[in-house]
Amino acid sequence: MSALESDAYREFRRDLHRHPEPAWREFYTTARIVEELRKRELTDLHIGPDALATDDRMNVPDDDALAEWERRARDAGADPGTVDELTGGYTGCVAVVERGDGPVIGLRVDIDALPIPESEDGDHVPAAEGFRSEHEGFMHACGHDAHATMGLGTLDAVLDSDFSGTLKLFFQPGEEQVAGGKPMAESGHLDDVDYLYAVHVGLDHPSGEVVCGVDGFLAVRHFLAEFTGDPAHAGARPEQGRNAVQAMAAAVQNLYAIPRHADGPTRVNAGLVGGGTATNIIPEESHIEGELRGGTTALAAYMSDHADRILESAAAMHDCEVDVATKGEAPSATSDDALAGIVGDVAGGTAGVTNVVDSADLGGSEDATYLMNHVQEQGGLACYLGVGTDHPGGHHTSDFDVVEDDIAIGIDVIAGAIRRVAETRP
Amino acid sequence: MSALESDAYREFRRDLHRHPEPAWREFYTTARIVEELRKRELTDLHIGPDALATDDRMNVPDDDALAEWERRARDAGADPGTVDELTGGYTGCVAVVERGDGPVIGLRVDIDALPIPESEDGDHVPAAEGFRSEHEGFMHACGHDAHATMGLGTLDAVLDSDFSGTLKLFFQPGEEQVAGGKPMAESGHLDDVDYLYAVHVGLDHPSGEVVCGVDGFLAVRHFLAEFTGDPAHAGARPEQGRNAVQAMAAAVQNLYAIPRHADGPTRVNAGLVGGGTATNIIPEESHIEGELRGGTTALAAYMSDHADRILESAAAMHDCEVDVATKGEAPSATSDDALAGIVGDVAGGTAGVTNVVDSADLGGSEDATYLMNHVQEQGGLACYLGVGTDHPGGHHTSDFDVVEDDIAIGIDVIAGAIRRVAETRP
Amino acid sequence: MSALESDAYREFRRDLHRHPEPAWREFYTTARIVEELRKRELTDLHIGPDALATDDRMNVPDDDALAEWERRARDAGADPGTVDELTGGYTGCVAVVERGDGPVIGLRVDIDALPIPESEDGDHVPAAEGFRSEHEGFMHACGHDAHATMGLGTLDAVLDSDFSGTLKLFFQPGEEQVAGGKPMAESGHLDDVDYLYAVHVGLDHPSGEVVCGVDGFLAVRHFLAEFTGDPAHAGARPEQGRNAVQAMAAAVQNLYAIPRHADGPTRVNAGLVGGGTATNIIPEESHIEGELRGGTTALAAYMSDHADRILESAAAMHDCEVDVATKGEAPSATSDDALAGIVGDVAGGTAGVTNVVDSADLGGSEDATYLMNHVQEQGGLACYLGVGTDHPGGHHTSDFDVVEDDIAIGIDVIAGAIRRVAETRP
Amino acid sequence: MSALESDAYREFRRDLHRHPEPAWREFYTTARIVEELRKRELTDLHIGPDALATDDRMNVPDDDALAEWERRARDAGADPGTVDELTGGYTGCVAVVERGDGPVIGLRVDIDALPIPESEDGDHVPAAEGFRSEHEGFMHACGHDAHATMGLGTLDAVLDSDFSGTLKLFFQPGEEQVAGGKPMAESGHLDDVDYLYAVHVGLDHPSGEVVCGVDGFLAVRHFLAEFTGDPAHAGARPEQGRNAVQAMAAAVQNLYAIPRHADGPTRVNAGLVGGGTATNIIPEESHIEGELRGGTTALAAYMSDHADRILESAAAMHDCEVDVATKGEAPSATSDDALAGIVGDVAGGTAGVTNVVDSADLGGSEDATYLMNHVQEQGGLACYLGVGTDHPGGHHTSDFDVVEDDIAIGIDVIAGAIRRVAETRP
Repeated sequence: MSALESDAYREFRRDLHRHPEPAWREFYTTARIVEELRKRELTDLHIGPDALATDDRMNVPDDDALAEWERRARDAGADPGTVDELTGGYTGCVAVVERGDGPVIGLRVDIDALPIPESEDGDHVPAAEGFRSEHEGFMHACGHDAHATMGLGTLDAVLDSDFSGTLKLFFQPGEEQVAGGKPMAESGHLDDVDYLYAVHVGLDHPSGEVVCGVDGFLAVRHFLAEFTGDPAHAGARPEQGRNAVQAMAAAVQNLYAIPRHADGPTRVNAGLVGGGTATNIIPEESHIEGELRGGTTALAAYMSDHADRILESAAAMHDCEVDVATKGEAPSATSDDALAGIVGDVAGGTAGVTNVVDSADLGGSEDATYLMNHVQEQGGLACYLGVGTDHPGGHHTSDFDVVEDDIAIGIDVIAGAIRRVAETRP
Repeated sequence: MSALESDAYREFRRDLHRHPEPAWREFYTTARIVEELRKRELTDLHIGPDALATDDRMNVPDDDALAEWERRARDAGADPGTVDELTGGYTGCVAVVERGDGPVIGLRVDIDALPIPESEDGDHVPAAEGFRSEHEGFMHACGHDAHATMGLGTLDAVLDSDFSGTLKLFFQPGEEQVAGGKPMAESGHLDDVDYLYAVHVGLDHPSGEVVCGVDGFLAVRHFLAEFTGDPAHAGARPEQGRNAVQAMAAAVQNLYAIPRHADGPTRVNAGLVGGGTATNIIPEESHIEGELRGGTTALAAYMSDHADRILESAAAMHDCEVDVATKGEAPSATSDDALAGIVGDVAGGTAGVTNVVDSADLGGSEDATYLMNHVQEQGGLACYLGVGTDHPGGHHTSDFDVVEDDIAIGIDVIAGAIRRVAETRP
Repeated sequence: MSALESDAYREFRRDLHRHPEPAWREFYTTARIVEELRKRELTDLHIGPDALATDDRMNVPDDDALAEWERRARDAGADPGTVDELTGGYTGCVAVVERGDGPVIGLRVDIDALPIPESEDGDHVPAAEGFRSEHEGFMHACGHDAHATMGLGTLDAVLDSDFSGTLKLFFQPGEEQVAGGKPMAESGHLDDVDYLYAVHVGLDHPSGEVVCGVDGFLAVRHFLAEFTGDPAHAGARPEQGRNAVQAMAAAVQNLYAIPRHADGPTRVNAGLVGGGTATNIIPEESHIEGELRGGTTALAAYMSDHADRILESAAAMHDCEVDVATKGEAPSATSDDALAGIVGDVAGGTAGVTNVVDSADLGGSEDATYLMNHVQEQGGLACYLGVGTDHPGGHHTSDFDVVEDDIAIGIDVIAGAIRRVAETRP
Repeated sequence: MSALESDAYREFRRDLHRHPEPAWREFYTTARIVEELRKRELTDLHIGPDALATDDRMNVPDDDALAEWERRARDAGADPGTVDELTGGYTGCVAVVERGDGPVIGLRVDIDALPIPESEDGDHVPAAEGFRSEHEGFMHACGHDAHATMGLGTLDAVLDSDFSGTLKLFFQPGEEQVAGGKPMAESGHLDDVDYLYAVHVGLDHPSGEVVCGVDGFLAVRHFLAEFTGDPAHAGARPEQGRNAVQAMAAAVQNLYAIPRHADGPTRVNAGLVGGGTATNIIPEESHIEGELRGGTTALAAYMSDHADRILESAAAMHDCEVDVATKGEAPSATSDDALAGIVGDVAGGTAGVTNVVDSADLGGSEDATYLMNHVQEQGGLACYLGVGTDHPGGHHTSDFDVVEDDIAIGIDVIAGAIRRVAETRP
């Protein structure tokens, strides 16, 4: 990669970093990606509703919230025509390059940001160098700005090579809420993909280290349970209430007590709860925002089935109603050794790579797994690789940052692996 | 009452005391009462199935238990022909005397005993004087032996008077389990009763004291909830269990948390619980034997409705089934002032009575209320009166006993009141 | 009362109504009352810290909130000097008139408002006639503006009579949060009071009706329990959390299950609960804002003791800490018949009074009880009387309002009763 | 092994099978083992208190139960002198053979039975061939009769060989309750053991299969929590109770909700619960008999610490006391590859062995782990091997049985491995 290009990628990444957008509100981000993509020779470019199985989107914000972020994107200079295509929260896009015979190879990068206020500390490079978040309270605290940039860089590197085959780039929205993987996996654009890579920076691996195949994805479901009862004066007429806080408490007590499973790890958390209106009123409403996980997709389904039954029963127990909505979801997945092996081979010969790790566990959840499973279920191979970077703060903290030079390493490794896959058809 | 009669009553009471029998197993007791009744000039005598609405019997023991107690009664010398009529647990009887014009007046006495071992202490009169329980583990610890004797004595006193009207004597089984009141109330024999008295000895009132009208009956329901799940090895396959002990615990926690009611007192108790088979097996069964009460019949129904819902929901929450059975039940009731007033008038002039109390609260439950309500609902009057006695131990303790002379006081007061009611038709 | 005076009172009441202020923030209200009081011939006037046992104040807002409301009061034209005296939330005042020999007679009126948005409906008189709340989100929705006006009118009526004795007027802050009764009761100003009246408008009694003696005050305690644990990633390290939401749920389940009490009604409510920070984080904090009540002071203490133990145990169970603070408190109390009788006598002869009710139950809580108990414990008499008014909406609703003519009826009855008490020394 | 010997072992095994004895009541079993051992040339034989760290015994029955089983043993013909030495429940023994230079090698076999009624079905060999349990309700349903026989046979085979070294045979009581492993491990007799084998038949492995090294032992603790409160009449005085069933229910709900642990599997079970005395009495006592497990000893300790805190807090929450006793305990352990490898080598050349499995997970708990850890902690090696057998019913069911020919296979493999270890000192 030339220094000039490198500067362009840095500028692009910083532009995205200044405009962090959460799930289904990546209007500016998508518009900027599209703007860059249109400068390249693409065979096809799918935007907005064309890039997604729109009915599978989860946790889409209400119209007001969408409109507010759309406005922000326009104010920040996003291309109006592109934003028009994204209206309604149809963010993300898929770029296609067909170059002669050869397999169809996909790369998935995610593009959304987090509701975390970014550090203003002088030690924090984005603050020091003037590309700190311009959306106060939101931040690219997980490196998805770097991922999008790697996607663009990989495209350039492949275009610039003798690659023969089809390359598909998936710029996926809504990963942080495990809300965007499914609609992209079901979009149809994955149906002919023979090989799929996905990539993440950092993950506590230092600069110079490459993880060839990440495993240990916990399948997950985010849910929101809203209990509804009836209010009553707690002193004068307690019996007239239908107590939504009692229902919630019964649910919490029993959710954590779902039987452990011999087949592997399971998880449950009632992460955000609340209810009631006043000290002297029997609470008429309450809610639990929580998550259920499993070491396999089946284990997460096991937890989910139990949780649904517990939430319903807890409501019934206190004569309340409950509405349980799935706000995000992702299965587990496994990286194929063949693709991981190619990453290892390529990384071993890539400048800047000082350590190659065969495999590592994520220990968390990711919805790239939807895309990986989709490809694997139709007989293809998939692999999730990690590109190390010395990140000062942990992922999802206000001090997180990436070393920009590591983006170039990522591009070199991924583009190299894609070319090798096209050649060897493993 | 002559001394001779008094001796006969004492002997009768002690005979019953030696043979305490619990609900639906009062074979000996009923046979002995019938034996005495047949010596009197009765218009009618209804025994066994003829004395009860048989389908309304609650908590009837299984055939083996009935057969065992039937055998005991025969062994103790009960009249075989009478016991034949009671087979199947159709205990209790109704005696009728028609004596010219006049209202129909009823007296209800209960005849069953308790599963309490009787004291062997030298201070305990039945032990000292040789009429301690011969059914080890069972005892007349609430004075129903005295009640039955009062019934007989009242009959004699009325027969021996110029009473004009109809007297009906209800010897009711199964009061301790609130299981016998309903079938007797619904037997049809109460349908023409204009005035009904019921009586209890003791209740912490001393010898010489008479309570004219008892109130404060808590309506009550006894229930048995049996939860069924599936066992599993707790170490190897915890997820394969359906845990009946978790269901039971969830039910207990929420039963006690039924909302208080502004209209009056409510009660709930999970008095006897259990479950499971072994430390390392996920429990497949559990049970709650409990009760629900209310200051009014409506309040008890309120508790009962909530409890049913909670028991069902707790089972569903842990994927178990639950079977909820009513084992006993009684409404609340109120003593009519007019009948209580007559008791007061009569008691004031009765030898041995040193204190007359207008009214007192029972603070517990009683299924005489079924009979009282039945009479009141058809326009009649009902009254529950108390006959004090210095009882050494509390009701339902192994030291409970009655002063036998107080039985005679009771007979005089009740018979006097019945004659006065017949005359004055209040 | 002359028409002129009546207009003045109406204007005064409407001024207060436009400036509703919640507990310890009654800066404008107190300043306006003081302004009016200073126009009268008082023997003494105690303001701010002099009117209260300052250490007994409960639920005082933080400095920022106090400063904000102090600023609002000044902006609305409150006398700056008076507001200076109230700085720090020392609101309320005590006015004293000594007029020759005679007993010391007190009248307590409360002056605070509620965090309820006032109706803008054309049917709502304050909206229609232009004296709707100027503090958006707050409202005199319980008639304390009328109470303060009755206090002032009663003072005028007594001053204008041949009253001989001492009159003390207690303008009490913070009743709605049962936070102001105790500090006023313990201020020392009640110590020589022989007779105390307190008054409330409405309470579902219509215009023209007077309730001589209100009873049935539920003793109450408001509490805030704040649980603290440790956060952890719910997927990667669930065992490292100390789960404050589990602690809260265990507390809720068991708080509602405090044993019922045979001595009378008890109440418990976890009215406002919450906890947690994110779906995937083990919750490190949670809270319960609730209340405990009893038909007597002892019953409320019983509930409070159990609740404290349950909250502590629930925290300990999940290795969390809990801080439990009392935010408001009031005992039960009983109106003395002698004082109620005088109200009845006076009301019977008061123009506009069409119905006199001897006694009625409040069925809720009130901290006038602190003042009543204080007087009664030192041998005096106390009585809480009700002045009916046709209020369109219920108390504590956005449509609540009083018929202003009923304020005059209240003044006439109270002033009349005070004069009669001074004469008869019941 | 000669046919003659085989007959003797069969007879011995069937004798033990006819006399199944649970923990600390293995009087007949121990006496019969001792009787056989005394026929051999032993260097030493430790019986009763000499074989155990007596203070470490867990879950010892009360004196009456011990006396009853001691009597049964004498009635069945156990040697009176030996039983005298075991009085007080000091069952089990350790046999020692010193044969020249060489390492000290141990073999641990367990000897206790289960409280399970044995099948009377004609398909059940012990029933068909007349050696069904003579202690009704108890059964060798886990093959410990075969284990004891293998111990004896291994001794014979080693004695009959050119073995040079020291052989120690540990006949351990109380394994089923994980109650006997610790006192035997701490007896001192393990202190010089260089190599230790333990053996189990069956475990769902068929006849002819040998598992060289079993792993996956779940560390475990059995506990008994007894809650004590105060009784009260549930109708008349509910507030006077301290409800032990509420405490138990709160504990159950929260025990199952101990946070999952990222380091591996954890387990909890409230396997047997109960409480209360009567429907209308607030329960004064209750209990939980349960277990806590973990994939490692540390994970079981984690569960145990949480459980202790929850049990204490649940009692405190309802003003009760709780006594928590440990009734059994075992750590996790790992089989050493070196010893397992020798088993594999020997088994490969043993007649009757058709399949050799390197390793398998137990998925349950065993207190041989105490002995294994003890040897490993002092630098020795330990290995738990499995000898397959076609068992018709599962372990711990009334149809369980072993194929007696497989006992001989076990003896050949174990004795062969011991000789090989003595030679090779791995």
